[in-house]
Amino acid sequence: MSQPSASPAPFRVIDLIRKKRDGGTLSTAEIGYLVAGCTDGSIPDYQMAAWLMAVVLKGMNREETAALTDAMLHSGEVLDLSFLPAKKVDKHSTGGVGAKTSLVLAPLVAAAGLYVPMISGRGLGHTGGTLDKLESIPGFRVGLPVAEFHRVLKACRASMIGQTEKVAPADRKLYALRDVTGTVESPYLICASIMSKKLAEGTDALVLDVKTGSGAFMKKEEDAVFLAQLMVETGELMGKQMAALITDMNQPLGHMVGNALEVQECIEVLHGGGPADLRDLCIELAAWMLFLGEAAKTVAEGKKRAAEIIASGNAFDRFRQMVELHGGDISTIDDPTRLPSADHRVEVSSPQAGYVSSIACEQVGTACVILGGGRERKEDSVDPAVGIVVHKKIGDRVGAGESLCTIHCHSDAQAALAKTLVRESYQISAAPPASKPSLIRRVIYKGEY
Amino acid sequence: MSQPSASPAPFRVIDLIRKKRDGGTLSTAEIGYLVAGCTDGSIPDYQMAAWLMAVVLKGMNREETAALTDAMLHSGEVLDLSFLPAKKVDKHSTGGVGAKTSLVLAPLVAAAGLYVPMISGRGLGHTGGTLDKLESIPGFRVGLPVAEFHRVLKACRASMIGQTEKVAPADRKLYALRDVTGTVESPYLICASIMSKKLAEGTDALVLDVKTGSGAFMKKEEDAVFLAQLMVETGELMGKQMAALITDMNQPLGHMVGNALEVQECIEVLHGGGPADLRDLCIELAAWMLFLGEAAKTVAEGKKRAAEIIASGNAFDRFRQMVELHGGDISTIDDPTRLPSADHRVEVSSPQAGYVSSIACEQVGTACVILGGGRERKEDSVDPAVGIVVHKKIGDRVGAGESLCTIHCHSDAQAALAKTLVRESYQISAAPPASKPSLIRRVIYKGEY
Repeated sequence: MSQPSASPAPFRVIDLIRKKRDGGTLSTAEIGYLVAGCTDGSIPDYQMAAWLMAVVLKGMNREETAALTDAMLHSGEVLDLSFLPAKKVDKHSTGGVGAKTSLVLAPLVAAAGLYVPMISGRGLGHTGGTLDKLESIPGFRVGLPVAEFHRVLKACRASMIGQTEKVAPADRKLYALRDVTGTVESPYLICASIMSKKLAEGTDALVLDVKTGSGAFMKKEEDAVFLAQLMVETGELMGKQMAALITDMNQPLGHMVGNALEVQECIEVLHGGGPADLRDLCIELAAWMLFLGEAAKTVAEGKKRAAEIIASGNAFDRFRQMVELHGGDISTIDDPTRLPSADHRVEVSSPQAGYVSSIACEQVGTACVILGGGRERKEDSVDPAVGIVVHKKIGDRVGAGESLCTIHCHSDAQAALAKTLVRESYQISAAPPASKPSLIRRVIYKGEY
Repeated sequence: MSQPSASPAPFRVIDLIRKKRDGGTLSTAEIGYLVAGCTDGSIPDYQMAAWLMAVVLKGMNREETAALTDAMLHSGEVLDLSFLPAKKVDKHSTGGVGAKTSLVLAPLVAAAGLYVPMISGRGLGHTGGTLDKLESIPGFRVGLPVAEFHRVLKACRASMIGQTEKVAPADRKLYALRDVTGTVESPYLICASIMSKKLAEGTDALVLDVKTGSGAFMKKEEDAVFLAQLMVETGELMGKQMAALITDMNQPLGHMVGNALEVQECIEVLHGGGPADLRDLCIELAAWMLFLGEAAKTVAEGKKRAAEIIASGNAFDRFRQMVELHGGDISTIDDPTRLPSADHRVEVSSPQAGYVSSIACEQVGTACVILGGGRERKEDSVDPAVGIVVHKKIGDRVGAGESLCTIHCHSDAQAALAKTLVRESYQISAAPPASKPSLIRRVIYKGEY
């Protein structure tokens, strides 16, 4: 259980663990030493686990968080996209139910003249993942090699791929260890994990969509704000233009939950339609991306610009082009009824008349996972066709027996548990709720909250 | 990184880590599950390390501490000494410099009619260890098999041995992990480690000598009191008669520091002589052992009894008998000048006249280690002959150039660093210090402090 000592180490791991345990501050060199040792395996997992638990319970300051992010970022490949002749921007969402803005934002912002080199993840637990949604488009390849990613970016200014093995290997190692040692739930470690991967894209600006509410990882708004501030300040310390929106996840975003269903809904938005909440959030996030990427002088101008680009059809055209460049079957984009679909329908109806006063949103996400539309474990495969269409949202009036949601599935039996979960997630009250959830709760930008 | 799952486990380790991380209380069954899994290797070290760090930072309550102690105790062999026809008592000291009372107490209390089945440790760091002191007696065997230990106990009512591999294997595993993960410094874990080993002796009563001051592990009296209370309450919860004395370790106990030198000083005490502080502490601890073992009605009666037994020569005779039964050369007990000795003497003299106002006691212990009389690492062997004779203690008057200590060693060169350390450990001031350290600072017994 002693450390290997091939060459004299600059630090003793035990001292670094003790320092954090006692509430001290680690230097950039000390944090770099830990991350390097964890990545190359020279520091044993049990020492990293003790240090991680000390970080969870004692926290880190901004400089330590930036140092950890930077060390994890540079544990692997950092894309060099400096050959692209305009600003490169991206968006990161902390995940939710029906959270599908990436599919609208990438082509929309690209159509405005900026580059969007987007590296996304897969769904896990009750939240969906961008890669799973894209793969519901027949033929769409998310695993492009770097050269092809470059080619797609040059051709249409937007490309959406998965994380390669070469990006932030320290994060993969640390995350696997955190997952089994009760050290996932730390804003500092979450920030470093997200930012190390996002900054590996080599973008100039990053807009964060930090979700809060019953369907988000951060149930409490204060926790979402804390994480958002941390990520914004960490990105700024690393020279990036940063902003964060704290957005509502007390109910699914839009109406569609499920992979092909969500692609269909995004196509509606790109055509100028779709549900208002999804459309508004896409416009808002796009506006911030345009503003931080210097394609708009103000956020207000960015919103105007984004709306115009959708109205002109350019955003949809760009999406169609991107899908084609990724090998996707564009006939499904031109006619979304050709996307994978499940023929069977199960209605979830309201047991009484009244108003929707709340939705246990995480439970709706879990219902979709149970249908096969998400994954409980990383190894699970997903069914692109299944999902839930949400008809009634918070504040909506509903009659007794009226449908709250429609489950898209392959049989009644398959839908049984999901149906119970969805029904129980709805609270129906006699009077309308005092207020509907506000879509955007807060904006964090340059120290202003 | 996932747990093996041969048969369905009653708990998920990750849940137990999270519970402690969030300040929760673990049940006896949950703690038992962790200790069993750690001992048999089914729970990986990284999960135990995270849990240990959570314990260090979130603490445990009395029931959890007792459950941990009990689980560690029962991870191995518990001695059954019920065949012995009188009460069995022991003493545990948290360790210090010149702390040598065990060698006096075991024969003294045995001579009073109680049994003392003492399992001791070796020195580590700046503190000495009972086994190392005993082994400075030529031929003395500390590694007796259980049957022989029983035989010695039956014959003379006292036997002093080392911990066998079969006692508290959970502690050995946990300690090795704590040692490299910055999780040694927790009173709860220290308590469980000490008590699990001491209770494996199968005694009825245990007196704790918890040291505090510059030469102790607990520098602050409040930390010593906290640990002492914890150990007393843990022992009581497990059905043992318990008391703790908080005793001073701001200067070496007695005059001798070093293995054979300390045996020599103990023989002086057993003959009715020796330095007052050592003699007084031995009488006090013996009195508590007699009282808890019901060989004296009060502690005061116990003190009277202990003094009488020394004066009668019975304590010395018992020591001589025990040494003989352990294979030790009793000619060295009858004539301590025959114990291993180092011929060379180096004086550490006072640079000025005045009064000893303080002694950096840990540094004196470290000086002895540097001479070869202690060990920095577990694997080190010790030299029984070397050591330090302390002439001046706190409050003593000293002339310029007068000797503070005499170093027993093999050459001037060997003593150079130790000499500097010892000299620098002494503070000499013009006026006498306001007060001398009080030998016994506090007694903890049955909820009274």
